[in-house]
Amino acid sequence: MSKTSKTSWRTKLHDIIYEADTPAGKLFDVILLITIITSIILVMLESVKSIDSKYHNLLNISEWVITILFSIEYIARIITVKKPSKYIFSFYGIIDLLSTIPKYISLVVGGVHALAALRALRLLRVFRILKLARYLGASNNLVNALKASRAKISVFLFAVIIVAVILGTVMYLIEGEENGFTNIPKSVYWCIVTLTTVGFGDIAPQTPLGQFIASLVMILGYGIIAVPTGIVSAEYANQSNTKKEEPKNQDIHLNSKSCENCLAEKHKDNADYCYNCGEKLYN
Amino acid sequence: MSKTSKTSWRTKLHDIIYEADTPAGKLFDVILLITIITSIILVMLESVKSIDSKYHNLLNISEWVITILFSIEYIARIITVKKPSKYIFSFYGIIDLLSTIPKYISLVVGGVHALAALRALRLLRVFRILKLARYLGASNNLVNALKASRAKISVFLFAVIIVAVILGTVMYLIEGEENGFTNIPKSVYWCIVTLTTVGFGDIAPQTPLGQFIASLVMILGYGIIAVPTGIVSAEYANQSNTKKEEPKNQDIHLNSKSCENCLAEKHKDNADYCYNCGEKLYN
Amino acid sequence: MSKTSKTSWRTKLHDIIYEADTPAGKLFDVILLITIITSIILVMLESVKSIDSKYHNLLNISEWVITILFSIEYIARIITVKKPSKYIFSFYGIIDLLSTIPKYISLVVGGVHALAALRALRLLRVFRILKLARYLGASNNLVNALKASRAKISVFLFAVIIVAVILGTVMYLIEGEENGFTNIPKSVYWCIVTLTTVGFGDIAPQTPLGQFIASLVMILGYGIIAVPTGIVSAEYANQSNTKKEEPKNQDIHLNSKSCENCLAEKHKDNADYCYNCGEKLYN
Amino acid sequence: MSKTSKTSWRTKLHDIIYEADTPAGKLFDVILLITIITSIILVMLESVKSIDSKYHNLLNISEWVITILFSIEYIARIITVKKPSKYIFSFYGIIDLLSTIPKYISLVVGGVHALAALRALRLLRVFRILKLARYLGASNNLVNALKASRAKISVFLFAVIIVAVILGTVMYLIEGEENGFTNIPKSVYWCIVTLTTVGFGDIAPQTPLGQFIASLVMILGYGIIAVPTGIVSAEYANQSNTKKEEPKNQDIHLNSKSCENCLAEKHKDNADYCYNCGEKLYN
Repeated sequence: MSKTSKTSWRTKLHDIIYEADTPAGKLFDVILLITIITSIILVMLESVKSIDSKYHNLLNISEWVITILFSIEYIARIITVKKPSKYIFSFYGIIDLLSTIPKYISLVVGGVHALAALRALRLLRVFRILKLARYLGASNNLVNALKASRAKISVFLFAVIIVAVILGTVMYLIEGEENGFTNIPKSVYWCIVTLTTVGFGDIAPQTPLGQFIASLVMILGYGIIAVPTGIVSAEYANQSNTKKEEPKNQDIHLNSKSCENCLAEKHKDNADYCYNCGEKLYN
Repeated sequence: MSKTSKTSWRTKLHDIIYEADTPAGKLFDVILLITIITSIILVMLESVKSIDSKYHNLLNISEWVITILFSIEYIARIITVKKPSKYIFSFYGIIDLLSTIPKYISLVVGGVHALAALRALRLLRVFRILKLARYLGASNNLVNALKASRAKISVFLFAVIIVAVILGTVMYLIEGEENGFTNIPKSVYWCIVTLTTVGFGDIAPQTPLGQFIASLVMILGYGIIAVPTGIVSAEYANQSNTKKEEPKNQDIHLNSKSCENCLAEKHKDNADYCYNCGEKLYN
Repeated sequence: MSKTSKTSWRTKLHDIIYEADTPAGKLFDVILLITIITSIILVMLESVKSIDSKYHNLLNISEWVITILFSIEYIARIITVKKPSKYIFSFYGIIDLLSTIPKYISLVVGGVHALAALRALRLLRVFRILKLARYLGASNNLVNALKASRAKISVFLFAVIIVAVILGTVMYLIEGEENGFTNIPKSVYWCIVTLTTVGFGDIAPQTPLGQFIASLVMILGYGIIAVPTGIVSAEYANQSNTKKEEPKNQDIHLNSKSCENCLAEKHKDNADYCYNCGEKLYN
Repeated sequence: MSKTSKTSWRTKLHDIIYEADTPAGKLFDVILLITIITSIILVMLESVKSIDSKYHNLLNISEWVITILFSIEYIARIITVKKPSKYIFSFYGIIDLLSTIPKYISLVVGGVHALAALRALRLLRVFRILKLARYLGASNNLVNALKASRAKISVFLFAVIIVAVILGTVMYLIEGEENGFTNIPKSVYWCIVTLTTVGFGDIAPQTPLGQFIASLVMILGYGIIAVPTGIVSAEYANQSNTKKEEPKNQDIHLNSKSCENCLAEKHKDNADYCYNCGEKLYN
């Protein structure tokens, strides 16, 4: 950390935008987080008729302010990265673009309704800011447990869907259109609603036989929930045990610095070059 | 694998249809899988009035094409097996017949509604194609855990049903016909809906006493769900531990070849004769 | 088992009624089981208006036949036990009386509605017949696990009720009478419906603030369910582990014979006297 | 315990009010518990219109009696503690005041509706009386397990909320106002109702595409529930194992005495001075 290298303004900006270890970087992240959450709340309020009609101008101006802030951030991100194309076509690069552009498009096309959805994507950006490093470390076992149980949960979900299709067809034949089971896809939808114990009640069996089969579906669904839960908890317990036996090497600290070239993160504190692309790292 | 034996066209066809280790066998399985899923989607679309009235002819023709394909496959399966009766009366043999025949019957009897259900059985055939070997290996622990907890889950389900019958009768007496609890079977149905936390809301208690007892039923149901989940996860963890202690003999590879005579699968790669019936195996 | 003792008809009848090890005893249990289940189905059908009006006489006669059969059984049970008072005031003795008597009372008082409930108690008798010995052995761990987690589950349920009362009051103040939250008890009922994820939907929040708090209640309820499940599965796993370490003494066979004097069961096969009261046991 | 010291009436009263080890202290706690529960039932009954109109005077008088009892208790608590300010601004001190004061305010302002909520806070006092020492000891593992899984459950809840916001926006766009998804906040509310498997059914998707996405939401919610359950049960099992390996020092008995000065509890039986503030302890 004692090493001080000549850093251009671009490198400084890179550190502020992409990293969270310096005070300026932390401040940037906090401001960005607040902006994103504000923006999401604005999108929500805009959809409420009574609020939109009262405060339409205020909401419109706020949205423009946020859009411009996001645009500046987007450009800054492109400038400070060595290979902009890598950022632009990365997952977060696309999310950043999609969540910034709707307001500009609305200028050309008019306030298209469906663009609101794109703005909701801004919420995904929260994941980047939080970097979730601290939490991800904590929930590493969980991620491993979920990975280990992936295949079993797939088989399980596959079985649930097959059961839903077959029982849905049976319910369609028993209950019929007059009781709301208008067609097979709707019956299958009802069957999923029931198997997952959600039970909206917008469609409900009326005939005694239908109610009997519905009872079986419910008890089945109630029993089925034990399977993924059992798998995850056993696998998770397994992960914890395995970890205990391994020597702990958590004393190696990985910082949140990200490479200017390839955006790779989690470098060791004493690393001078990116482990991924060999690019020189600046503090 | 170096052993090459004189194989008739029947044996070749057998390999394509019943096995998945050769490229031709894999291709056959993939095509069959697509056909089955297409056919299920057609059955679903046919039940949607608005779609059926528009595309009736297209759906009808597609259904005929699929029925004829399935018929050819069914006949091919009979021809290539040494003892056709064994295939015909096997589980999948019956499923195959039932899911092929409805369209032919509709020629004689007219489009009988209830035949759609039989066509939904085609979905069960998916299990055979996938053979689920890879997954079943992975979820072997799960199957063992479910087997080990079978007796306990039966006792549990039995207790749930008794509780539902007794509390259902009580609710019938308290709420009565005027609040939707028209008769005891319907009250028992309501009780199962509530115990399993589905809660359609088509029937709901109206009297204070009824709502009080309903609250008890809900809390009971909420607590009860812990039991099967606890059993499955503990048994599953148990299975995992037992497995670890046993010597692993997973280096013996079992292929997906199936015997021409008795349809038994999971032969060892170097097996020349079926472990089940002694029939010669061809590669 | 080679020992044959002079047994009176009373002892023989006792063996048939109270035990399940002899062929006659097994036959008696099977017949009783069928009678009970038939009787429960009759009680259910009787409550269905359309069925009752059609087959009133048939149902009435069947009910009389079953009532007389149960009466004979009740008297036989009293005669064959040495201390009848012990049987009469035992749990099953009371259940037997309550589930037999309604039809006789209806002669005097007329078909009183509420007596149907008493007849549903017959279902509890199923537990005795099954004796559930085989299953209880299997689920002994489960019973121990539930016992071990009793205190924790009580605290948990207590906390759930307090949360329901406080949040119910809050919802009553926010939503008020005009949205179906007519009074605090009803709001608490709604809160339990929501916390347990049943969600009937007969009462649902209409105001934005109400829906926001309802969301919190739901997420809370969704998280809370993890607690009893976690407790039961951990305790159950614990029980299984403890059991493994103990020496297994399951080679001692306990038969289903029950003492003529005190009705105690689970005597060892070679026992000549009741371990509970010292009464001579007959094979 | 053999040590007897000169104790003033204030010390005696302190022991009765704050402690549960003496017969008088136990009696006080039981009476207080009954008073609180009675008071909560009164608050509930008062909100039921039909009961309130019939028994208005009775309910009013009972409420005054309870308020006065609570006032006396509150004053006694202030008098007997050495540093009253410490009690007054403690959590329970504020709860005590808030749950006593509403009736007095209603004299000045008239029967304000919202004050009922404050009276429901009385229920929180139950926690103090029970002191829950016995139970908390039993569920210590549980508390530790919940603490250990706090970070993971936070990440999990955070993910659930993000999913609800994004899917809620999507559903708003698909279903639109005409099907009850009036605005984004309401759609998000619906999404939480569905993800948690509550399913009120006051809002339900009507379009085929909406029902398809709703099915995905349900299956997701159904799978998600496995995560917190798995975490809690694995952590809980972990806690139990850790405990076993540690030497048990539960033979040190901590009594329920509370220091007159700082209200700290759980002193060792042979302690003469408070471990927290050094104040002399009286038996």
